[in-house]
Amino acid sequence: MSTIPELIAHKRSGLTHSRADLEQLILGYVAGTVPDYQVSAWLMAVYWRGMSAPEVADLTQVMARSGDMLNLSELAHTVDKHSTGGVGDKTSLVLMPMLAALGFTVAKMSGRGLAHTGGTVDKLESIPGWQSELSEAQFLAQARDIGLSLVGQSKNLAPADGLLYALRDVTATVDSLPLIASSIMSKKLASGAQTIVLDVKVGQGAFMKTLSAGCELARAMVSIGEHAGRTVRAVLTGMDTPLGHMAGNSLEVQEAVFTLQGRGPADLTELCVALAVEALLAHDPLAQTAVSQTAVSYASAEARARQVLQDGSALSKLRAFVQAQGGDPIYIDHPERLDVAPDRAELQAQQTGYLAGLDALAVGQAVLALGGGRERKGEAIDHGVGVEVLKKPGERVATGEVVARLYHRSGRGLETAHNLLQEAFAYSEQTVSVPPLILERIGEERA
Amino acid sequence: MSTIPELIAHKRSGLTHSRADLEQLILGYVAGTVPDYQVSAWLMAVYWRGMSAPEVADLTQVMARSGDMLNLSELAHTVDKHSTGGVGDKTSLVLMPMLAALGFTVAKMSGRGLAHTGGTVDKLESIPGWQSELSEAQFLAQARDIGLSLVGQSKNLAPADGLLYALRDVTATVDSLPLIASSIMSKKLASGAQTIVLDVKVGQGAFMKTLSAGCELARAMVSIGEHAGRTVRAVLTGMDTPLGHMAGNSLEVQEAVFTLQGRGPADLTELCVALAVEALLAHDPLAQTAVSQTAVSYASAEARARQVLQDGSALSKLRAFVQAQGGDPIYIDHPERLDVAPDRAELQAQQTGYLAGLDALAVGQAVLALGGGRERKGEAIDHGVGVEVLKKPGERVATGEVVARLYHRSGRGLETAHNLLQEAFAYSEQTVSVPPLILERIGEERA
Repeated sequence: MSTIPELIAHKRSGLTHSRADLEQLILGYVAGTVPDYQVSAWLMAVYWRGMSAPEVADLTQVMARSGDMLNLSELAHTVDKHSTGGVGDKTSLVLMPMLAALGFTVAKMSGRGLAHTGGTVDKLESIPGWQSELSEAQFLAQARDIGLSLVGQSKNLAPADGLLYALRDVTATVDSLPLIASSIMSKKLASGAQTIVLDVKVGQGAFMKTLSAGCELARAMVSIGEHAGRTVRAVLTGMDTPLGHMAGNSLEVQEAVFTLQGRGPADLTELCVALAVEALLAHDPLAQTAVSQTAVSYASAEARARQVLQDGSALSKLRAFVQAQGGDPIYIDHPERLDVAPDRAELQAQQTGYLAGLDALAVGQAVLALGGGRERKGEAIDHGVGVEVLKKPGERVATGEVVARLYHRSGRGLETAHNLLQEAFAYSEQTVSVPPLILERIGEERA
Repeated sequence: MSTIPELIAHKRSGLTHSRADLEQLILGYVAGTVPDYQVSAWLMAVYWRGMSAPEVADLTQVMARSGDMLNLSELAHTVDKHSTGGVGDKTSLVLMPMLAALGFTVAKMSGRGLAHTGGTVDKLESIPGWQSELSEAQFLAQARDIGLSLVGQSKNLAPADGLLYALRDVTATVDSLPLIASSIMSKKLASGAQTIVLDVKVGQGAFMKTLSAGCELARAMVSIGEHAGRTVRAVLTGMDTPLGHMAGNSLEVQEAVFTLQGRGPADLTELCVALAVEALLAHDPLAQTAVSQTAVSYASAEARARQVLQDGSALSKLRAFVQAQGGDPIYIDHPERLDVAPDRAELQAQQTGYLAGLDALAVGQAVLALGGGRERKGEAIDHGVGVEVLKKPGERVATGEVVARLYHRSGRGLETAHNLLQEAFAYSEQTVSVPPLILERIGEERA
C-alpha cells in the first residue's frame, strides 16, 4: 500500500491511479484518516494532470460507494434525469410523468433549492399535502405501482462528493472536467437508475461556457456511466434564459401542468420531448425481450413522447403521483387554485426594439429576493411569490410595454427584485437571432 | 484584496503573484487565518507553474520577515555559509574561523542535528564547557570583538519556512525549485549576513541529482539574494561520500582542528579553501574604500585562504571563539584529549580491488545507531562515538584490509552500525575514476 504523499506524487507526475489508490484516498478522506490538506494538494494535481476515462470512472464509483447505494434492481426500466442547469427549470415536473407514461420507472431522489436555484421538492411542496418523506419500502412500492415516486435526497448519498465539493470550492479546483463529471455522476450512480438522461446547459450563464466544453463534459459523463454498466445519454442545450415563462414554486407547478395538458410554452415542451426521446433511445420499455429489441428511430420516439402529452397519460401519472404522496389532486385538475401571491407589480420595457437577452441568474435572484428561495439550508420559503416573463429574447417590444410581472407579498423584496429584473433584460435596435435550444446529442443509440 | 481561492486560481493559471499576494497567503498561514488545505493546493499550483525570479525573491523575503530578523547592520563584512549537504560535513568548523581570520565577521545561527545529519552546535558541544546560549547583545559583541560567534537557531527564525516545509513534506511538493530555493534562502536572509556562500551538493546521495539541476538551484538562490541586496556565491560540489575521514561529533572536531593546523584531509581542505575564495570574490574585507576596490583574482584569494591555514591565524580564531563561549581551549590545543569512545571495532574489505563508492547516508545512519545522533528533537547524544573511514572511493584495497573503524560504547548499536557500513562500501575490480570535488561556481565576481 502506498502512502498518501506517494499517491499525490503519482498524480502530480501525470500517472494513472488504480481503483485501490482512489479507495485509499477518497474513503480515507470520508473516514477522516486522510487530512484535507493532502486531498487539496491531490485535487490540484488532478486539475493539472487530468484523469484517464477508466480512472475517472473508478473515482466516480468509489465516490458513489462512499455512502448509501439505492438499490433499484427489483424495478424494471428505471430512469433518472439530471440537469446542470438552473433557473425556472421545471423540466423534471414535466419529464418525470412523461417517462412514467412511456413505461419507465422513475424512482428519484431530489434536493431542495439553495440561493438562486430552485429544487423539485420545493416546487412540489406548493401542492397542499404533498410530502417527500417516504420510507424506502413505500418509495419502492409506489414506484412499482404507478411508475413514479420522489424522495428527498439522503444525507448519506455519496458523502465523498459533498466533502470534495466543499474542498474544491475553497481551493480553486472546481473547474476540472474529471472532478465535475465524477461529482455529478457519483450521485446518479448511487441513486440506482439503469438509464440516465443528462441535460447539459451551455452558454454564458452556464457552468460550461462553450459547446465544445459542454460536449467534453457530456462525453465524460456518458463514459463514466458505461463503465458502471449504466446507459447514459446527454443533450446539450443552449440557454441563458429561464425555461418557459414562470419562475417561483407555485407558478412553475402551474406551468408544468399546462405543459402536461399540451398547452405549455414551446421551449419547455421541446426540451421535455427531447429528453424523453433520449431516454427511449437509451432504453425502450416496450422492447420486452432481447430478441425483439430493435433500435427505436428518433422519429418514432418523438411521436411517442408527444403522444403522452397529447393524450393526457403523462398528466394522469402526475396526478396519481401527487395523490400517492399525500397531495390533493384537485390542484392538478385545477392548477389555478394553487396559492399564488395576490400582489402584482409590472416591469416595463425600457426602449423600443428587440429583446436581446434575459439573464436567468438575475431572474433567480429576483425570486430569492421576493422570498421564493432560501439563502441558507433549512429556511422556510414562500411558494406563492415569483416572476412571470412575458417577453423572451428575440421578441419585439415597445417602450412601456409590460415585459415581466412580479408576484409579491405586500411589497416584500419588491424593490430589489424589480431592480434585478430591470438589469436582467437587454435590448437591441436590430433583430436578434436566438440560438437553437438543442445544440448536440451525445450517446450511443441502444435498443 | 483578493480572496485566497482567487490567489490559488491566479497561480493555477500560470500568472505571477505580487508581493502583496504573497504576504496575504504566507503571513495569513503563519497567523493561522489561512488554512493548510488552501496553502497545500497553492503549493501544488506552484509546483506545476513555477515562479518568476522576482516572484520567488518576493516569496523568500516574505518568508524571511515572517519572524525575527537578525540585525547585523552594525557589524562590518558579515558573511554566512550554507550547505545543502549532510554527513560528516564539518566544513563550518573549519571555514568559520578561516573567514574570521580573513577579516570577515561570522555571526552565525546554527541548528542541531536530526536523524542522520549532524549539527554544528552538537559538534561544538563535544568541547567541554562550550555552549550556544548567548544573549543577542553577547552574540553581537563577541562577533565584533573576535569576528566569530555562533548561537542556536532562534525558534522564531522564518517560521513560515518551518510551516511550509512540514506541509510540503506530506503533500508531495518538496521537490520544487522555487520552494527549495526560498526555503533555504529565507533563513539566510533572516540571519542577516551581507555575504552568503552556498555549498550545493550534487549527486545520487544529494537532493540535487544532476549538475544541471544543482546549477539551476544555485542560480535561483543567488538571484534571491541579489534581489534582497545581499551578495551570494555558490559552489557545486559532487560528493556522495562523507567529507574527510571522520563522522561523529568529537571525531569531527578533532579532524577540523587538524585541518586548521594545515594537516587535514585533502577533500575537506580543498572545499574549505574553495568556499573561502568564493567569500573573498563576493566581498573582500581588505578593500576598505569604494575607490580602492578592485576585483580580487581567484589566485590571490586562494593564496590568502591557504595562508590562514598555514600561519595558524584561523586556528587562533577557533581557539578564541571556543573560549569566548565557555569552552576550555586546551581541547583546541590538544584535540586528542576530547572524549572519544574507547571501544573500537573494525570493518574489513570484502574483496580485493578498488573502492567504487561509499554511501554517505549509510555512514550517517551508522553514527546514529551508535548513539551519536538523535531520532527525535531534544534527545541526548553521545559525542564520543562515530565512524572513521580509512579508505575512500578510488583507493585500492585487499580482502581483509581495514576500511573503517567504529568507535562505540560497550557495543551499543554496534551490530546495526557494522551492517550499515558493510553495505555502504561498494567495490570494483577495475580502477575507479573519482569525480572532481568542485564541479561549478555560480555568482558574479565582486570587488
